[in-house]
Amino acid sequence: MQSRACIIAVGSEMLTPFRVDTNSLFITDRLNTIGFDVRMKTVVGDDVGELAGMVRASLAWADLIVLTGGLGPTADDITRDAVAQVLDLPFDEDQETVARIRERFTRRGMVMQEINRRQAMVPRGAALLDNPNGTAPGLWLEHGKTALVLLPGPPREMKPMFEAIVRDRLTARSGGAGLFRRVLKITGQPESVVDAKAQPIYGRWQTQDVPISTTILAVLGQIELHLTAGAPDREAADRVLDPAVRELQDALGGDVYSVDGASLEEVVGARLRERRLKVAVAESCTGGLLTSRLTDVPGSSAYVDRSEVCYSNQAKIDSLGVPAALIAAHGAVSEPVARAMAEGIRAKASADVGMGVTGIAGPDGGTPEKPVGTVAIAVLVGADARVRTFQFVGAREMVKFQSAQAALNMLRLMLSQVS
Amino acid sequence: MQSRACIIAVGSEMLTPFRVDTNSLFITDRLNTIGFDVRMKTVVGDDVGELAGMVRASLAWADLIVLTGGLGPTADDITRDAVAQVLDLPFDEDQETVARIRERFTRRGMVMQEINRRQAMVPRGAALLDNPNGTAPGLWLEHGKTALVLLPGPPREMKPMFEAIVRDRLTARSGGAGLFRRVLKITGQPESVVDAKAQPIYGRWQTQDVPISTTILAVLGQIELHLTAGAPDREAADRVLDPAVRELQDALGGDVYSVDGASLEEVVGARLRERRLKVAVAESCTGGLLTSRLTDVPGSSAYVDRSEVCYSNQAKIDSLGVPAALIAAHGAVSEPVARAMAEGIRAKASADVGMGVTGIAGPDGGTPEKPVGTVAIAVLVGADARVRTFQFVGAREMVKFQSAQAALNMLRLMLSQVS
Repeated sequence: MQSRACIIAVGSEMLTPFRVDTNSLFITDRLNTIGFDVRMKTVVGDDVGELAGMVRASLAWADLIVLTGGLGPTADDITRDAVAQVLDLPFDEDQETVARIRERFTRRGMVMQEINRRQAMVPRGAALLDNPNGTAPGLWLEHGKTALVLLPGPPREMKPMFEAIVRDRLTARSGGAGLFRRVLKITGQPESVVDAKAQPIYGRWQTQDVPISTTILAVLGQIELHLTAGAPDREAADRVLDPAVRELQDALGGDVYSVDGASLEEVVGARLRERRLKVAVAESCTGGLLTSRLTDVPGSSAYVDRSEVCYSNQAKIDSLGVPAALIAAHGAVSEPVARAMAEGIRAKASADVGMGVTGIAGPDGGTPEKPVGTVAIAVLVGADARVRTFQFVGAREMVKFQSAQAALNMLRLMLSQVS
Repeated sequence: MQSRACIIAVGSEMLTPFRVDTNSLFITDRLNTIGFDVRMKTVVGDDVGELAGMVRASLAWADLIVLTGGLGPTADDITRDAVAQVLDLPFDEDQETVARIRERFTRRGMVMQEINRRQAMVPRGAALLDNPNGTAPGLWLEHGKTALVLLPGPPREMKPMFEAIVRDRLTARSGGAGLFRRVLKITGQPESVVDAKAQPIYGRWQTQDVPISTTILAVLGQIELHLTAGAPDREAADRVLDPAVRELQDALGGDVYSVDGASLEEVVGARLRERRLKVAVAESCTGGLLTSRLTDVPGSSAYVDRSEVCYSNQAKIDSLGVPAALIAAHGAVSEPVARAMAEGIRAKASADVGMGVTGIAGPDGGTPEKPVGTVAIAVLVGADARVRTFQFVGAREMVKFQSAQAALNMLRLMLSQVS
């Protein structure tokens, strides 16, 4: 039986329409791996009474309560107070912490303000968690069967502190198997097609000795299959998840582009690099996004030579050598023009791979024959050429993203087959 | 005194490391405007007992409980059950809803499954909220002074339903003034500089008749100042917020690029369009991102003529006419090369505005003299030329983003002054 955890993020700014709590995603991932099940997540403002109420309610059922934020020096920082109130603990000032905070200010040529002593106030019996990246130490308290962990809010302080206690204290307390995950990333197919192929396989996993639960996450231009298994350690999880991933890969074939977290541009980049191919790109409707994604990958200068964004017809003619007659005959958004763009840029750059993308990103510019979202893409690899027309749905930026995604995927598939 | 609300998102998928609840941001915005203060947000999994516990705890203090998700037809969908359990209400099947769901299936040439009748089960006394975009109706219940609103999880169903009840039911129940917000967007200055200029102004607002609270939000390459005031209606809020925004604009000067939500690329685009200027861009380290951001704006084909991504030195020489001797003398990442790139692309495109960006995005390629994050940017507008070198911090994608941001901002400032 897994231990039950809840996460409470403290801070009124996370109750505005502008901010979400993302610390809990990191904490959930780490807790799951060592056998804690996160049953509830809450955001509470800077109000002692309300936070105390939530801590009290959670103590009734949780084995672990992780609180983030509210450990700063100001009167708004009320996490210490709320927890001490619920557990009915007095405060002591920790002299070592005062000295450490003072030293931290001195090192930066500043004087510690009196207000910072608040961060050295420790509810009696709490253990201090070292904070190498900030002034506020974390706190560890126990009450009955429940552990309470108070962590700072800034991720660069919270994460290293959390990693340290995961190793030192939390693993020893966790009650059951860890949850281990794998992610298959898929593109080029709608969710329904992926699910129709995958469901007969993952359906069986739910009833096996070590069950695997499966979640389908459809995001723009991409589908993710998340497999989760409970196991005492990573090796045991691998024994169950490795064959499961392979079985899905066999069923889904080339649609699966990544099983190790790599992005589509990383997968394409690795193949270009392996095969020592240089790519040149001519973009119209994607407006530079395709090249920007290719160059998001460290080391991409090894295979990205150049690209041109030719928005106007004249630019396509002047710069890429697309024949004016071709545009007149087929329109700028057409397979022949996409191909001429790819050929033009490849010749100009003396590259091995040429890509051309032309389409109507919207919201204006659509016609009955070529509505908004119509995109023609050409990819040339050596003597091999593929040209396709897509019909994407969504707002301008969504059409741009899906077009770049489709172009990268066409290139990925061609690089798989010609090898 | 404002009414107190809490939001409970139901769904185990939001307790994984992969998903956050974003419905609550929309709901918070709308509730704030009509005088509800969101005091707490919680995510609960698909567990009747745990959800019932959270609803029971919230009934003790909240004037309004908004629940999203868990209204589907499957056994996992437990929101109706948990709420009925807490309020001790029996279920009745609503025949009109059954008929409506059946009709919805028929219209799509499908047969309603028996399981979908679950969505027509109504706790006795609940009002149904119409769902034009899905099968699950929403539910409205009252218990003592508290209203409970059950909404579907998918945003395209939740949002229209929520808007309808805001108008019809929630405004009448809200206890106090609405919260109205303004956002000033600022770039080109660090947070400390912005705060030093703004604090003496917003510090005074906290004690005035209608107080304005101010939050500074620093995100990558940008700072936002959020002003919030409570007022009975939008006109009253405008009377307080309009002069406040103007006062900050006067103090911060040209650093404020937007007070109406517009993005930096929208602001720059509007100025280019007004002045009928065409822009041409030569990008190295930004790899197409700068042009992609310019072309995210609908109608940008009116002022974006073309751009080139020249990653290699040879491409800079061949395609942009950057003299090889200039690169040899100063290095590819240098102000003279950035300027030559901007001049080259502008001449080629016969454009009015030329931009050149060259830098070291990392993680490799840095030297002691030019570490990772060194970026030279040149912007030419007519006879006016500005060239600057920046030192950005962060990973590859962060350097790319900050470079594009800085280039857009240089252009914005030049277009403001030459007009």
